[in-house]
Amino acid sequence: MALWLRFEAAGAEHFGTLDGDTVTAWRGDMFDHPQQTAQRFALAEVRLLTPCKPGKMLGLWNNFHERAAKEGLQRPAHPLYFLKAGTCFAAHGETIRRPAGYGGMVVFEAELGIVIGRRASAIAPADAPAAIFGYTCVNDVTARDLMRLDPAFVHWTRAKSFDSFGPFGPVIATDIDPAALRVRAIVSGEERQDYPVSDMFFSPAEIVSRISHDMTLEAGDIIACGTSVGAGELREGDTVEVAIDGVGRLVNRFA
Amino acid sequence: MALWLRFEAAGAEHFGTLDGDTVTAWRGDMFDHPQQTAQRFALAEVRLLTPCKPGKMLGLWNNFHERAAKEGLQRPAHPLYFLKAGTCFAAHGETIRRPAGYGGMVVFEAELGIVIGRRASAIAPADAPAAIFGYTCVNDVTARDLMRLDPAFVHWTRAKSFDSFGPFGPVIATDIDPAALRVRAIVSGEERQDYPVSDMFFSPAEIVSRISHDMTLEAGDIIACGTSVGAGELREGDTVEVAIDGVGRLVNRFA
Repeated sequence: MALWLRFEAAGAEHFGTLDGDTVTAWRGDMFDHPQQTAQRFALAEVRLLTPCKPGKMLGLWNNFHERAAKEGLQRPAHPLYFLKAGTCFAAHGETIRRPAGYGGMVVFEAELGIVIGRRASAIAPADAPAAIFGYTCVNDVTARDLMRLDPAFVHWTRAKSFDSFGPFGPVIATDIDPAALRVRAIVSGEERQDYPVSDMFFSPAEIVSRISHDMTLEAGDIIACGTSVGAGELREGDTVEVAIDGVGRLVNRFA
Repeated sequence: MALWLRFEAAGAEHFGTLDGDTVTAWRGDMFDHPQQTAQRFALAEVRLLTPCKPGKMLGLWNNFHERAAKEGLQRPAHPLYFLKAGTCFAAHGETIRRPAGYGGMVVFEAELGIVIGRRASAIAPADAPAAIFGYTCVNDVTARDLMRLDPAFVHWTRAKSFDSFGPFGPVIATDIDPAALRVRAIVSGEERQDYPVSDMFFSPAEIVSRISHDMTLEAGDIIACGTSVGAGELREGDTVEVAIDGVGRLVNRFA
Protein backbone atom coordinates (compact mmCIF):
# COMPACT_ATOMS: atom_id res chain seq x y z
CA MET A 1 0.00 0.00 0.00
CA ALA A 2 1.13 3.54 -0.73
CA LEU A 3 -0.36 6.87 0.32
CA TRP A 4 -0.21 9.47 -2.48
CA LEU A 5 -0.68 13.18 -1.97
CA ARG A 6 -0.10 16.59 -3.51
CA PHE A 7 1.52 19.38 -1.55
CA GLU A 8 3.18 22.74 -1.64
CA ALA A 9 6.66 23.07 -0.20
CA ALA A 10 9.32 25.73 -0.59
CA GLY A 11 7.02 27.67 -2.91
CA ALA A 12 6.46 24.87 -5.43
CA GLU A 13 3.75 22.26 -6.05
CA HIS A 14 4.74 18.62 -5.77
CA PHE A 15 3.20 15.22 -5.57
CA GLY A 16 4.55 12.27 -3.72
CA THR A 17 4.08 9.65 -1.06
CA LEU A 18 3.63 9.76 2.68
CA ASP A 19 5.48 7.44 5.09
CA GLY A 20 4.75 8.22 8.73
CA ASP A 21 5.66 11.89 8.99
CA THR A 22 7.92 11.94 5.94
CA VAL A 23 6.80 13.11 2.52
CA THR A 24 8.82 11.97 -0.50
CA ALA A 25 8.53 13.95 -3.72
CA TRP A 26 8.03 12.12 -7.01
CA ARG A 27 8.10 13.53 -10.52
CA GLY A 28 6.28 12.82 -13.78
CA ASP A 29 2.65 11.69 -13.77
CA MET A 30 1.19 10.23 -10.56
CA PHE A 31 -0.92 7.85 -12.64
CA ASP A 32 1.65 6.82 -15.23
CA HIS A 33 5.03 5.52 -14.08
CA PRO A 34 6.06 8.34 -11.76
CA GLN A 35 9.70 8.50 -10.68
CA GLN A 36 10.75 8.84 -7.07
CA THR A 37 13.15 11.68 -6.28
CA ALA A 38 15.55 12.08 -3.40
CA GLN A 39 13.62 15.10 -2.06
CA ARG A 40 12.15 14.58 1.43
CA PHE A 41 10.02 16.90 3.56
CA ALA A 42 8.64 16.68 7.05
CA LEU A 43 4.84 16.47 6.88
CA ALA A 44 4.64 19.47 9.21
CA GLU A 45 6.50 21.71 6.76
CA VAL A 46 4.31 21.09 3.71
CA ARG A 47 0.87 22.46 2.85
CA LEU A 48 -1.48 19.72 1.72
CA LEU A 49 -3.38 20.18 -1.55
CA THR A 50 -6.16 17.95 -2.87
CA PRO A 51 -4.37 14.65 -3.60
CA CYS A 52 -5.20 14.86 -7.31
CA LYS A 53 -6.94 17.27 -9.71
CA PRO A 54 -10.04 15.43 -10.92
CA GLY A 55 -11.41 16.17 -14.37
CA LYS A 56 -14.75 15.28 -12.84
CA MET A 57 -16.21 14.25 -9.51
CA LEU A 58 -19.37 12.17 -9.50
CA GLY A 59 -21.39 11.44 -6.38
CA LEU A 60 -23.86 8.61 -5.90
CA TRP A 61 -27.25 8.84 -4.28
CA ASN A 62 -29.22 5.96 -2.72
CA ASN A 63 -26.39 3.42 -2.67
CA PHE A 64 -26.87 1.85 0.78
CA HIS A 65 -29.34 -0.78 1.97
CA GLU A 66 -29.62 0.68 5.46
CA ARG A 67 -30.27 4.23 4.34
CA ALA A 68 -32.72 3.15 1.62
CA ALA A 69 -34.66 1.06 4.14
CA LYS A 70 -34.83 4.01 6.53
CA GLU A 71 -36.02 6.39 3.81
CA GLY A 72 -38.38 3.99 2.06
CA LEU A 73 -36.33 3.88 -1.14
CA GLN A 74 -35.91 0.93 -3.49
CA ARG A 75 -32.63 -0.43 -4.81
CA PRO A 76 -31.99 1.47 -8.06
CA ALA A 77 -31.58 -0.44 -11.33
CA HIS A 78 -28.44 1.56 -12.13
CA PRO A 79 -26.22 3.81 -9.99
CA LEU A 80 -27.86 7.23 -9.51
CA TYR A 81 -25.34 10.04 -9.60
CA PHE A 82 -24.70 13.76 -10.02
CA LEU A 83 -21.63 15.87 -10.80
CA LYS A 84 -19.92 18.30 -8.44
CA ALA A 85 -18.23 21.29 -10.12
CA GLY A 86 -14.42 21.31 -10.05
CA THR A 87 -14.48 24.73 -8.39
CA CYS A 88 -15.92 23.16 -5.21
CA PHE A 89 -12.89 20.97 -4.44
CA ALA A 90 -11.15 21.65 -1.14
CA ALA A 91 -8.12 20.14 0.53
CA HIS A 92 -7.72 18.62 3.97
CA GLY A 93 -7.56 21.54 6.39
CA GLU A 94 -9.41 24.04 4.20
CA THR A 95 -12.49 25.70 5.60
CA ILE A 96 -15.94 24.68 4.38
CA ARG A 97 -17.73 27.99 3.95
CA ARG A 98 -21.45 28.72 4.37
CA PRO A 99 -22.73 30.24 1.11
CA ALA A 100 -23.30 33.98 1.46
CA GLY A 101 -26.96 34.79 2.00
CA TYR A 102 -27.92 31.16 2.74
CA GLY A 103 -29.14 30.47 6.24
CA GLY A 104 -30.39 26.90 5.73
CA MET A 105 -28.95 23.49 6.54
CA VAL A 106 -25.42 22.65 5.42
CA VAL A 107 -25.01 18.89 5.65
CA PHE A 108 -21.87 16.71 5.85
CA GLU A 109 -21.90 13.35 4.11
CA ALA A 110 -18.94 11.04 4.77
CA GLU A 111 -18.16 8.95 1.71
CA LEU A 112 -15.61 6.59 0.21
CA GLY A 113 -14.08 8.12 -2.93
CA ILE A 114 -12.85 5.94 -5.78
CA VAL A 115 -9.89 7.49 -7.65
CA ILE A 116 -9.62 6.36 -11.27
CA GLY A 117 -6.09 5.47 -12.43
CA ARG A 118 -6.44 5.05 -16.18
CA ARG A 119 -8.88 5.81 -18.96
CA ALA A 120 -11.84 3.41 -18.79
CA SER A 121 -14.72 3.08 -21.21
CA ALA A 122 -17.32 0.30 -21.15
CA ILE A 123 -15.28 -2.02 -18.94
CA ALA A 124 -16.48 -5.17 -17.18
CA PRO A 125 -16.63 -5.33 -13.34
CA ALA A 126 -13.71 -7.78 -13.43
CA ASP A 127 -11.58 -5.14 -15.16
CA ALA A 128 -12.57 -2.33 -12.77
CA PRO A 129 -9.89 -2.99 -10.11
CA ALA A 130 -7.18 -2.40 -12.73
CA ALA A 131 -8.79 0.95 -13.61
CA ILE A 132 -8.93 2.06 -9.96
CA PHE A 133 -5.83 3.85 -8.68
CA GLY A 134 -6.93 3.94 -5.07
CA TYR A 135 -9.36 5.34 -2.52
CA THR A 136 -9.75 8.61 -0.68
CA CYS A 137 -12.09 10.26 1.84
CA VAL A 138 -14.79 12.57 0.48
CA ASN A 139 -17.12 14.93 2.29
CA ASP A 140 -20.05 15.53 -0.07
CA VAL A 141 -21.16 18.81 1.51
CA THR A 142 -24.71 19.84 0.57
CA ALA A 143 -26.86 22.94 1.06
CA ARG A 144 -29.85 20.72 1.57
CA ASP A 145 -32.55 23.39 1.78
CA LEU A 146 -31.73 24.56 -1.75
CA MET A 147 -32.40 21.22 -3.38
CA ARG A 148 -36.19 21.27 -3.46
CA LEU A 149 -37.06 24.97 -3.75
CA ASP A 150 -38.45 24.51 -7.27
CA PRO A 151 -41.55 22.30 -7.63
CA ALA A 152 -40.33 20.83 -10.94
CA PHE A 153 -36.57 20.46 -10.50
CA VAL A 154 -34.39 19.03 -7.73
CA HIS A 155 -31.33 21.24 -7.70
CA TRP A 156 -28.55 18.72 -7.06
CA THR A 157 -25.92 20.73 -8.90
CA ARG A 158 -26.49 24.00 -7.09
CA ALA A 159 -26.83 22.43 -3.62
CA LYS A 160 -23.61 20.42 -3.97
CA SER A 161 -21.26 22.69 -5.93
CA PHE A 162 -20.67 25.78 -3.81
CA ASP A 163 -16.98 26.64 -3.54
CA SER A 164 -15.43 24.50 -0.75
CA PHE A 165 -18.30 21.92 -0.80
CA GLY A 166 -16.07 19.16 -2.23
CA PRO A 167 -13.31 18.38 0.30
CA PHE A 168 -11.38 15.19 -0.40
CA GLY A 169 -8.11 13.66 0.70
CA PRO A 170 -5.77 14.04 2.46
CA VAL A 171 -4.24 11.07 0.58
CA ILE A 172 -5.08 8.39 -1.96
CA ALA A 173 -4.47 4.90 -0.57
CA THR A 174 -3.55 2.29 -3.18
CA ASP A 175 -3.67 -1.51 -3.12
CA ILE A 176 -6.44 -1.88 -0.59
CA ASP A 177 -9.59 -3.98 -0.71
CA PRO A 178 -12.50 -1.61 -0.16
CA ALA A 179 -14.97 -4.33 0.86
CA ALA A 180 -13.81 -4.42 4.48
CA LEU A 181 -13.67 -0.65 5.02
CA ARG A 182 -15.93 1.38 7.30
CA VAL A 183 -16.68 5.05 6.77
CA ARG A 184 -17.07 7.30 9.78
CA ALA A 185 -17.96 10.94 10.32
CA ILE A 186 -16.86 12.71 13.49
CA VAL A 187 -18.26 16.20 14.08
CA SER A 188 -16.62 18.28 16.80
CA GLY A 189 -15.57 15.11 18.60
CA GLU A 190 -18.85 13.21 18.29
CA GLU A 191 -19.17 10.20 15.99
CA ARG A 192 -22.16 10.75 13.71
CA GLN A 193 -21.67 8.12 10.98
CA ASP A 194 -20.10 4.66 11.02
CA TYR A 195 -21.19 2.40 8.21
CA PRO A 196 -19.65 -0.48 6.24
CA VAL A 197 -18.76 -0.23 2.55
CA SER A 198 -20.11 -3.78 2.25
CA ASP A 199 -23.66 -2.38 2.66
CA MET A 200 -23.52 -0.70 -0.77
CA PHE A 201 -26.05 -1.66 -3.45
CA PHE A 202 -23.27 -1.20 -6.02
CA SER A 203 -19.71 -2.03 -4.95
CA PRO A 204 -16.85 0.19 -6.14
CA ALA A 205 -16.01 -2.27 -8.96
CA GLU A 206 -19.65 -2.39 -10.08
CA ILE A 207 -19.92 1.40 -9.92
CA VAL A 208 -16.83 1.91 -12.06
CA SER A 209 -17.97 -0.67 -14.59
CA ARG A 210 -21.52 0.69 -14.83
CA ILE A 211 -20.53 4.35 -15.07
CA SER A 212 -17.78 3.55 -17.59
CA HIS A 213 -20.63 2.48 -19.89
CA ASP A 214 -22.21 5.93 -19.47
CA MET A 215 -19.10 8.06 -19.97
CA THR A 216 -15.35 7.69 -20.29
CA LEU A 217 -13.59 7.79 -16.93
CA GLU A 218 -10.10 9.29 -16.83
CA ALA A 219 -7.12 9.14 -14.51
CA GLY A 220 -7.78 11.38 -11.52
CA ASP A 221 -11.57 11.30 -11.81
CA ILE A 222 -13.30 10.65 -8.50
CA ILE A 223 -16.52 8.81 -7.80
CA ALA A 224 -17.91 9.35 -4.31
CA CYS A 225 -19.87 6.20 -3.47
CA GLY A 226 -22.78 7.86 -1.67
CA THR A 227 -23.45 8.06 2.03
CA SER A 228 -25.46 5.97 4.48
CA VAL A 229 -27.36 6.87 7.63
CA GLY A 230 -26.29 9.59 10.03
CA ALA A 231 -25.35 12.41 7.66
CA GLY A 232 -26.45 15.63 9.29
CA GLU A 233 -26.14 19.31 9.86
CA LEU A 234 -22.96 21.30 10.40
CA ARG A 235 -22.98 24.31 12.69
CA GLU A 236 -20.61 27.25 12.49
CA GLY A 237 -17.37 26.42 14.26
CA ASP A 238 -17.77 22.64 13.83
CA THR A 239 -14.83 20.51 12.83
CA VAL A 240 -15.90 17.64 10.59
CA GLU A 241 -13.77 14.58 10.01
CA VAL A 242 -14.31 11.82 7.47
CA ALA A 243 -12.31 8.85 8.74
CA ILE A 244 -11.74 5.61 6.87
CA ASP A 245 -9.23 3.33 8.61
CA GLY A 246 -6.62 2.33 6.06
CA VAL A 247 -7.42 5.30 3.82
CA GLY A 248 -7.12 8.44 5.90
CA ARG A 249 -8.71 11.17 7.97
CA LEU A 250 -10.05 14.23 6.15
CA VAL A 251 -10.56 17.15 8.53
CA ASN A 252 -12.22 20.48 7.73
CA ARG A 253 -13.72 23.24 9.78
CA PHE A 254 -17.09 24.79 8.94
CA ALA A 255 -17.45 28.56 9.15
CA MET B 1 -16.09 41.30 -33.33
CA ALA B 2 -13.62 38.43 -33.47
CA LEU B 3 -14.19 34.71 -33.99
CA TRP B 4 -11.91 32.57 -31.82
CA LEU B 5 -11.26 28.90 -32.37
CA ARG B 6 -8.90 26.04 -31.56
CA PHE B 7 -7.51 23.82 -34.26
CA GLU B 8 -4.96 21.24 -35.23
CA ALA B 9 -2.64 21.99 -38.13
CA ALA B 10 0.65 20.45 -39.20
CA GLY B 11 0.48 18.05 -36.28
CA ALA B 12 0.19 20.70 -33.55
CA GLU B 13 -2.64 22.25 -31.54
CA HIS B 14 -3.19 25.99 -31.94
CA PHE B 15 -5.71 28.62 -31.12
CA GLY B 16 -6.47 31.68 -33.13
CA THR B 17 -8.96 33.76 -35.03
CA LEU B 18 -10.98 33.18 -38.17
CA ASP B 19 -11.35 35.78 -40.94
CA GLY B 20 -13.33 34.49 -43.90
CA ASP B 21 -11.46 31.33 -44.84
CA THR B 22 -8.19 32.33 -43.18
CA VAL B 23 -7.15 31.14 -39.74
CA THR B 24 -4.52 33.16 -37.88
CA ALA B 25 -2.62 31.47 -35.08
CA TRP B 26 -2.15 33.29 -31.79
CA ARG B 27 -0.03 32.31 -28.81
CA GLY B 28 -0.29 32.59 -25.06
CA ASP B 29 -3.65 32.41 -23.31
CA MET B 30 -6.81 33.02 -25.35
CA PHE B 31 -8.41 34.70 -22.35
CA ASP B 32 -5.47 36.75 -21.12
CA HIS B 33 -3.65 39.03 -23.55
CA PRO B 34 -2.91 36.55 -26.35
CA GLN B 35 -0.34 37.56 -28.96
CA GLN B 36 -1.02 37.30 -32.67
CA THR B 37 1.58 35.40 -34.72
CA ALA B 38 2.38 35.61 -38.42
CA GLN B 39 1.20 32.02 -38.95
CA ARG B 40 -1.78 31.69 -41.33
CA PHE B 41 -3.70 28.60 -42.44
CA ALA B 42 -6.50 28.04 -44.90
CA LEU B 43 -9.62 26.96 -42.99
CA ALA B 44 -9.82 23.87 -45.22
CA GLU B 45 -6.42 22.62 -44.09
CA VAL B 46 -7.02 22.71 -40.34
CA ARG B 47 -8.99 20.33 -38.14
CA LEU B 48 -11.34 22.20 -35.83
CA LEU B 49 -11.27 21.39 -32.12
CA THR B 50 -13.71 22.64 -29.50
CA PRO B 51 -13.03 26.40 -29.39
CA CYS B 52 -11.96 26.23 -25.73
CA LYS B 53 -11.47 23.59 -23.02
CA PRO B 54 -14.08 24.35 -20.37
CA GLY B 55 -13.37 23.48 -16.77
CA LYS B 56 -17.14 23.04 -16.51
CA MET B 57 -20.20 23.23 -18.71
CA LEU B 58 -23.50 24.09 -17.10
CA GLY B 59 -26.84 23.80 -18.88
CA LEU B 60 -30.04 25.57 -17.94
CA TRP B 61 -33.51 24.06 -17.85
CA ASN B 62 -36.81 25.95 -18.09
CA ASN B 63 -35.39 29.30 -19.20
CA PHE B 64 -37.91 30.30 -21.91
CA HIS B 65 -41.36 31.82 -21.61
CA GLU B 66 -42.70 30.05 -24.71
CA ARG B 67 -41.50 26.61 -23.71
CA ALA B 68 -42.63 27.01 -20.11
CA ALA B 69 -46.10 28.09 -21.28
CA LYS B 70 -46.31 25.06 -23.56
CA GLU B 71 -45.24 22.66 -20.81
CA GLY B 72 -47.21 24.25 -17.98
CA LEU B 73 -44.10 25.33 -16.07
CA GLN B 74 -43.67 28.42 -13.92
CA ARG B 75 -40.86 30.95 -14.11
CA PRO B 76 -38.20 29.66 -11.70
CA ALA B 77 -37.05 31.86 -8.84
CA HIS B 78 -33.39 31.14 -9.72
CA PRO B 79 -31.77 29.60 -12.82
CA LEU B 80 -32.18 25.80 -12.80
CA TYR B 81 -29.10 24.04 -14.10
CA PHE B 82 -27.11 20.82 -14.35
CA LEU B 83 -23.51 19.96 -15.24
CA LYS B 84 -22.35 18.09 -18.32
CA ALA B 85 -19.16 16.00 -17.86
CA GLY B 86 -16.07 17.28 -19.67
CA THR B 87 -15.70 13.91 -21.39
CA CYS B 88 -18.87 14.61 -23.42
CA PHE B 89 -17.47 17.63 -25.29
CA ALA B 90 -17.32 17.30 -29.07
CA ALA B 91 -16.09 19.62 -31.80
CA HIS B 92 -17.86 20.88 -34.91
CA GLY B 93 -17.83 17.99 -37.37
CA GLU B 94 -17.51 15.21 -34.79
CA THR B 95 -20.10 12.47 -34.78
CA ILE B 96 -22.73 12.37 -32.03
CA ARG B 97 -22.89 8.70 -31.12
CA ARG B 98 -25.86 6.71 -29.86
CA PRO B 99 -24.92 5.13 -26.51
CA ALA B 100 -24.26 1.39 -26.90
CA GLY B 101 -27.24 -0.65 -25.77
CA TYR B 102 -29.60 2.34 -25.67
CA GLY B 103 -32.45 2.27 -28.18
CA GLY B 104 -34.47 5.21 -26.84
CA MET B 105 -34.82 8.84 -27.89
CA VAL B 106 -31.70 10.93 -28.45
CA VAL B 107 -32.75 14.57 -28.53
CA PHE B 108 -31.01 17.66 -29.94
CA GLU B 109 -31.37 20.96 -28.09
CA ALA B 110 -30.05 24.07 -29.84
CA GLU B 111 -28.73 26.56 -27.30
CA LEU B 112 -26.75 29.76 -26.94
CA GLY B 113 -23.55 29.13 -24.99
CA ILE B 114 -21.98 31.83 -22.83
CA VAL B 115 -18.18 31.55 -22.65
CA ILE B 116 -16.68 33.02 -19.48
CA GLY B 117 -13.57 35.14 -19.98
CA ARG B 118 -12.29 35.75 -16.47
CA ARG B 119 -12.77 34.44 -12.96
CA ALA B 120 -16.09 35.66 -11.56
CA SER B 121 -17.47 35.19 -8.07
CA ALA B 122 -20.60 36.89 -6.71
CA ILE B 123 -20.70 39.59 -9.37
CA ALA B 124 -23.57 41.96 -10.12
CA PRO B 125 -25.49 41.73 -13.42
CA ALA B 126 -23.90 45.03 -14.48
CA ASP B 127 -20.46 43.43 -14.15
CA ALA B 128 -21.39 40.26 -16.06
CA PRO B 129 -20.64 41.58 -19.58
CA ALA B 130 -17.01 42.17 -18.56
CA ALA B 131 -16.79 38.57 -17.33
CA ILE B 132 -18.19 37.16 -20.58
CA PHE B 133 -15.61 36.45 -23.29
CA GLY B 134 -18.14 35.68 -26.00
CA TYR B 135 -20.81 33.31 -27.25
CA THR B 136 -20.85 29.95 -29.00
CA CYS B 137 -23.36 27.39 -30.31
CA VAL B 138 -24.16 24.43 -28.06
CA ASN B 139 -26.09 21.26 -28.80
CA ASP B 140 -27.22 19.90 -25.43
CA VAL B 141 -27.73 16.32 -26.61
CA THR B 142 -29.85 14.22 -24.24
CA ALA B 143 -30.79 10.52 -23.96
CA ARG B 144 -34.26 11.55 -22.87
CA ASP B 145 -35.64 8.11 -22.04
CA LEU B 146 -32.94 7.61 -19.39
CA MET B 147 -33.91 10.65 -17.38
CA ARG B 148 -36.97 9.31 -15.57
CA LEU B 149 -36.29 5.58 -15.23
CA ASP B 150 -35.99 5.83 -11.45
CA PRO B 151 -39.11 6.86 -9.52
CA ALA B 152 -37.13 8.93 -7.02
CA PHE B 153 -34.37 10.54 -9.09
CA VAL B 154 -34.32 12.38 -12.41
CA HIS B 155 -31.06 11.35 -14.03
CA TRP B 156 -29.93 14.61 -15.64
CA THR B 157 -26.23 13.77 -15.38
CA ARG B 158 -26.40 10.37 -17.02
CA ALA B 159 -28.79 11.42 -19.80
CA LYS B 160 -26.68 14.44 -20.78
CA SER B 161 -23.08 13.29 -20.30
CA PHE B 162 -22.51 10.41 -22.73
CA ASP B 163 -19.30 10.86 -24.72
CA SER B 164 -20.05 13.15 -27.72
CA PHE B 165 -23.26 14.59 -26.15
CA GLY B 166 -21.71 18.04 -25.65
CA PRO B 167 -20.88 19.51 -29.07
CA PHE B 168 -20.06 23.21 -29.06
CA GLY B 169 -18.40 25.67 -31.41
CA PRO B 170 -17.15 25.98 -34.06
CA VAL B 171 -16.05 29.43 -32.83
CA ILE B 172 -16.51 31.87 -29.98
CA ALA B 173 -17.83 35.22 -31.17
CA THR B 174 -16.79 38.20 -29.06
CA ASP B 175 -18.19 41.73 -28.75
CA ILE B 176 -21.75 40.92 -29.69
CA ASP B 177 -25.00 41.82 -27.96
CA PRO B 178 -26.84 38.54 -27.34
CA ALA B 179 -30.26 40.16 -26.89
CA ALA B 180 -31.00 40.33 -30.62
CA LEU B 181 -29.85 36.79 -31.46
CA ARG B 182 -32.05 33.92 -32.64
CA VAL B 183 -31.16 30.27 -32.12
CA ARG B 184 -32.07 27.78 -34.82
CA ALA B 185 -31.80 24.01 -35.19
CA ILE B 186 -31.75 22.47 -38.65
CA VAL B 187 -31.96 18.69 -38.83
CA SER B 188 -31.14 17.08 -42.18
CA GLY B 189 -32.18 20.24 -43.98
CA GLU B 190 -35.39 20.92 -42.04
CA GLU B 191 -35.63 23.82 -39.61
CA ARG B 192 -36.86 22.49 -36.26
CA GLN B 193 -36.11 25.34 -33.86
CA ASP B 194 -36.04 29.11 -34.32
CA TYR B 195 -36.43 31.09 -31.14
CA PRO B 196 -35.25 34.48 -29.85
CA VAL B 197 -32.75 34.88 -27.02
CA SER B 198 -34.95 37.76 -25.82
CA ASP B 199 -37.55 35.18 -24.69
CA MET B 200 -35.30 33.97 -21.84
CA PHE B 201 -36.48 34.22 -18.23
CA PHE B 202 -32.88 34.96 -17.27
CA SER B 203 -30.73 36.87 -19.75
CA PRO B 204 -27.07 35.89 -20.20
CA ALA B 205 -25.94 38.70 -17.88
CA GLU B 206 -28.46 37.67 -15.23
CA ILE B 207 -27.46 34.01 -15.56
CA VAL B 208 -23.77 34.78 -15.10
CA SER B 209 -24.45 37.02 -12.13
CA ARG B 210 -26.79 34.54 -10.42
CA ILE B 211 -24.60 31.47 -10.97
CA SER B 212 -21.47 33.38 -9.92
CA HIS B 213 -23.12 33.60 -6.51
CA ASP B 214 -23.43 29.79 -6.44
CA MET B 215 -19.92 28.91 -7.61
CA THR B 216 -16.83 30.57 -9.00
CA LEU B 217 -16.88 30.81 -12.79
CA GLU B 218 -13.55 30.59 -14.59
CA ALA B 219 -12.20 31.54 -18.00
CA GLY B 220 -13.35 28.98 -20.53
CA ASP B 221 -16.35 27.77 -18.54
CA ILE B 222 -19.50 27.50 -20.63
CA ILE B 223 -23.10 28.06 -19.62
CA ALA B 224 -25.65 26.77 -22.13
CA CYS B 225 -28.72 28.99 -21.71
CA GLY B 226 -31.36 26.27 -22.12
CA THR B 227 -33.53 25.55 -25.11
CA SER B 228 -37.01 26.62 -26.19
CA VAL B 229 -39.72 24.84 -28.19
CA GLY B 230 -38.98 22.45 -31.04
CA ALA B 231 -36.16 20.36 -29.60
CA GLY B 232 -36.71 16.82 -30.82
CA GLU B 233 -35.44 13.42 -31.78
CA LEU B 234 -32.39 12.60 -33.87
CA ARG B 235 -32.43 9.57 -36.14
CA GLU B 236 -29.37 7.66 -37.31
CA GLY B 237 -27.81 9.42 -40.28
CA ASP B 238 -29.24 12.84 -39.39
CA THR B 239 -27.09 15.93 -39.68
CA VAL B 240 -27.93 18.44 -36.95
CA GLU B 241 -26.96 22.09 -37.14
CA VAL B 242 -27.20 24.70 -34.41
CA ALA B 243 -27.17 28.05 -36.21
CA ILE B 244 -26.95 31.46 -34.53
CA ASP B 245 -26.46 34.27 -37.01
CA GLY B 246 -23.51 36.33 -35.86
CA VAL B 247 -22.13 33.46 -33.77
CA GLY B 248 -21.74 30.44 -36.01
CA ARG B 249 -23.08 27.16 -37.35
CA LEU B 250 -22.29 24.01 -35.40
CA VAL B 251 -22.79 20.90 -37.53
CA ASN B 252 -22.65 17.29 -36.33
CA ARG B 253 -23.85 14.01 -37.69
CA PHE B 254 -25.71 11.48 -35.55
CA ALA B 255 -24.83 7.81 -35.91
